[in-house]
Amino acid sequence: MSNASIPSGGPVDPAVIDDLVAASRILAHHGVLDAWGHVSIRHPKNPERYLLSRARAPALVEAGDIMEFDLNSDPVDQQGRRMFLERYIHGEAFRARPDVNAVVHSHSPTVIPFTVTDEPLKAISHIASFLAGGCPCFEIRDVGLTQGLLVTNNKQGAALAKVLGDKPVALMRGHGNLVVASDIQRVVHRALYTEVNAQQLATALSFRRPIKYVTEDEAQDPKRLGDSWDVWKAEAMGK
Amino acid sequence: MSNASIPSGGPVDPAVIDDLVAASRILAHHGVLDAWGHVSIRHPKNPERYLLSRARAPALVEAGDIMEFDLNSDPVDQQGRRMFLERYIHGEAFRARPDVNAVVHSHSPTVIPFTVTDEPLKAISHIASFLAGGCPCFEIRDVGLTQGLLVTNNKQGAALAKVLGDKPVALMRGHGNLVVASDIQRVVHRALYTEVNAQQLATALSFRRPIKYVTEDEAQDPKRLGDSWDVWKAEAMGK
Amino acid sequence: MSNASIPSGGPVDPAVIDDLVAASRILAHHGVLDAWGHVSIRHPKNPERYLLSRARAPALVEAGDIMEFDLNSDPVDQQGRRMFLERYIHGEAFRARPDVNAVVHSHSPTVIPFTVTDEPLKAISHIASFLAGGCPCFEIRDVGLTQGLLVTNNKQGAALAKVLGDKPVALMRGHGNLVVASDIQRVVHRALYTEVNAQQLATALSFRRPIKYVTEDEAQDPKRLGDSWDVWKAEAMGK
Amino acid sequence: MSNASIPSGGPVDPAVIDDLVAASRILAHHGVLDAWGHVSIRHPKNPERYLLSRARAPALVEAGDIMEFDLNSDPVDQQGRRMFLERYIHGEAFRARPDVNAVVHSHSPTVIPFTVTDEPLKAISHIASFLAGGCPCFEIRDVGLTQGLLVTNNKQGAALAKVLGDKPVALMRGHGNLVVASDIQRVVHRALYTEVNAQQLATALSFRRPIKYVTEDEAQDPKRLGDSWDVWKAEAMGK
Repeated sequence: MSNASIPSGGPVDPAVIDDLVAASRILAHHGVLDAWGHVSIRHPKNPERYLLSRARAPALVEAGDIMEFDLNSDPVDQQGRRMFLERYIHGEAFRARPDVNAVVHSHSPTVIPFTVTDEPLKAISHIASFLAGGCPCFEIRDVGLTQGLLVTNNKQGAALAKVLGDKPVALMRGHGNLVVASDIQRVVHRALYTEVNAQQLATALSFRRPIKYVTEDEAQDPKRLGDSWDVWKAEAMGK
Repeated sequence: MSNASIPSGGPVDPAVIDDLVAASRILAHHGVLDAWGHVSIRHPKNPERYLLSRARAPALVEAGDIMEFDLNSDPVDQQGRRMFLERYIHGEAFRARPDVNAVVHSHSPTVIPFTVTDEPLKAISHIASFLAGGCPCFEIRDVGLTQGLLVTNNKQGAALAKVLGDKPVALMRGHGNLVVASDIQRVVHRALYTEVNAQQLATALSFRRPIKYVTEDEAQDPKRLGDSWDVWKAEAMGK
Repeated sequence: MSNASIPSGGPVDPAVIDDLVAASRILAHHGVLDAWGHVSIRHPKNPERYLLSRARAPALVEAGDIMEFDLNSDPVDQQGRRMFLERYIHGEAFRARPDVNAVVHSHSPTVIPFTVTDEPLKAISHIASFLAGGCPCFEIRDVGLTQGLLVTNNKQGAALAKVLGDKPVALMRGHGNLVVASDIQRVVHRALYTEVNAQQLATALSFRRPIKYVTEDEAQDPKRLGDSWDVWKAEAMGK
Repeated sequence: MSNASIPSGGPVDPAVIDDLVAASRILAHHGVLDAWGHVSIRHPKNPERYLLSRARAPALVEAGDIMEFDLNSDPVDQQGRRMFLERYIHGEAFRARPDVNAVVHSHSPTVIPFTVTDEPLKAISHIASFLAGGCPCFEIRDVGLTQGLLVTNNKQGAALAKVLGDKPVALMRGHGNLVVASDIQRVVHRALYTEVNAQQLATALSFRRPIKYVTEDEAQDPKRLGDSWDVWKAEAMGK
């Protein structure tokens, strides 16, 4: 994990870092991220680098905590900071998906039940219609355990990215999920509404009647997400 | 969407605007409105006009955000402000229902499961007895999709108003609901207790025993709503 | 409803009033009381009188709102204040139950599902063991409707008290419950843990396995309630 | 319960006491502890002593409330303070389990349903994998009732500790649970995630499909818990 020779992608606009910090705080504020979990973005100037906090609870992340990694998830300049054990999830998602610029790994509470049964997690509302195609589920035993159900190396991260395929969300059995998007606002939207849709679907399933899922021809990616971002950021940052 | 020739209904009492703002904040505070959703009132002096915020998260709406529209949902004086894409829901509800002076469109979280199954959403408590007659459900495919499941034009809005008929609440499949009432306090009461009743009914259904719904002869519209309004406004406005 | 001739039970210790106010705020803080609902106590010096707030949302009740009533629920000195329509619930409970000195009427949210099915609401935990004997359910149609499902006169109130019998809690179909106890701290404990037990029982029922209810020989009324009162009061009164 | 002759284990580092107070506040903040429940630690210098608050709601516990007890749960220096009736749970757990240095007794709300049915409470996520081996359930009737379902003497406490065996969590029928760990941070983690896992498992069970529990070979005790401790403490202590 030597990194003396990994050049930085260069300085990043503080507003971009602020949004990455806000994303972490927003998802913690809504209970999608617990005391672990993490949000990353691809480096705006170098697609071979990504930005992720040092190991720290998402609700406490600050701009100064953001570190830079290459796609092997080696740090550009570690400065002795402790790193997330599961950062390989991010590196391999960025490597496998050139269209992806933002990644969330969460233990989204109501997603867990869908990861341990074969009940499909699919969209039942317009806001979550990015889930219309369903969520593949990653079984870590298929690639071999290292530390419990955690993803702790590039091999496991790559296997997860392969299961994700071209989808926005992959479930991780007994663990949580991986959420990807083209930008930071969209990945926050997706991580939050995967949880909300899971709650609503659990209720709908309890009725024991046929469910009208959103069909793929009904799905529509939101064109702008500024309104929700404004209010979520205000609430999470206490402003 | 030209509006140079749409005359205003005239100035509106600031207390009326304050209540419209409070309605938006109250429903956001209780989680009935998420980062989208909207509340409108008919113009007090001109029944052919209605008042609705510019496109903004409900929790952030302020008096200065309120705009005026005609029943085609064209703005009286847009001033470059961005408008809610789904405002046609409001215009057509006001057009179809002369008795209605206040309208809510929400993604009420526990209402969603009832929109995607044929489990009836009916009143099980006195407070929600406005639901004794049940809620019709709008299927947007019946009138044609434009942008996912969103209502984006007057044709779709009119079709929704037709499904609503003379009821206080219509469900929108995979989307949310439409709630109408004679005044702002009552529409807030109805939007909130549609959600509460949905939660309670979901629990009652989980018992798998016959349910005693409130019958239509037991239903009673509250005579005054000032006590609940006072406390909800105090909580939502932080006063 | 003339009351010129109803003498007062006499002045009441402000600390007693403070506890009555706190009870209202505590139950509102925990969501047992919504914008309606009410808490009363028997007058400490005259068992033929009781104390109850003027009509006001429970979360907003203050010492100056407390009024005095006789057991017919006529006010001692109305002073033009608006009164709770359903105060007859209190008067008749105090009349029927000399052992009772505190009464709550609530729309306790998770109690509602038990009022509209014949699923028994019984204790499944020690803290709620006052429910070991089950809760009778009041059907207002048995005594005749006046205003929806509301209790609006002494006849209905007496019928409810009769259904209550010697129990601590009666359910009211499609409406809520009536909770009684020997003192204000105990009635708050009971109202709160009726809701908590209802939530837990709903979850237990969802497992579809036999349930071990608390048996009557296992039930134990708490000897002191000061510890919970201290923390609930601190949280509800913001101190 | 004479204690004139019980020598103290000696002074305790204030930081250790602070963490014990924080543990109580954290579990109250997350709703795992209600107005009762308690957290204790073994005395750092004398394994025959333990530290536990005087009888007080967990959310209100302060450093000055911490008392010292021997393993019979007799106080070293009572100073007239009221003691938890159920402290024998702690004393006997410390006696039976030399590997245990921290104990929680809670009425964890979603654990209750699992205590009154034979639905197994087992881990479905990595974070709660300490539950992979399942939770034994203590039936107090097996050892005899004293005060309802409460544990009020050493005999009952010892019976509970025997049911616990070498596990981290024991359920207590109709009452709550007992959670043990090697240190204060770990016991808080376990008490909190027993509740979270119970909620998630209840949802998973509602799907009525086979569940993939975390297997014992997949379980992994967290190596460090500082990140979660930091954020939980900050939230609970308002810092």
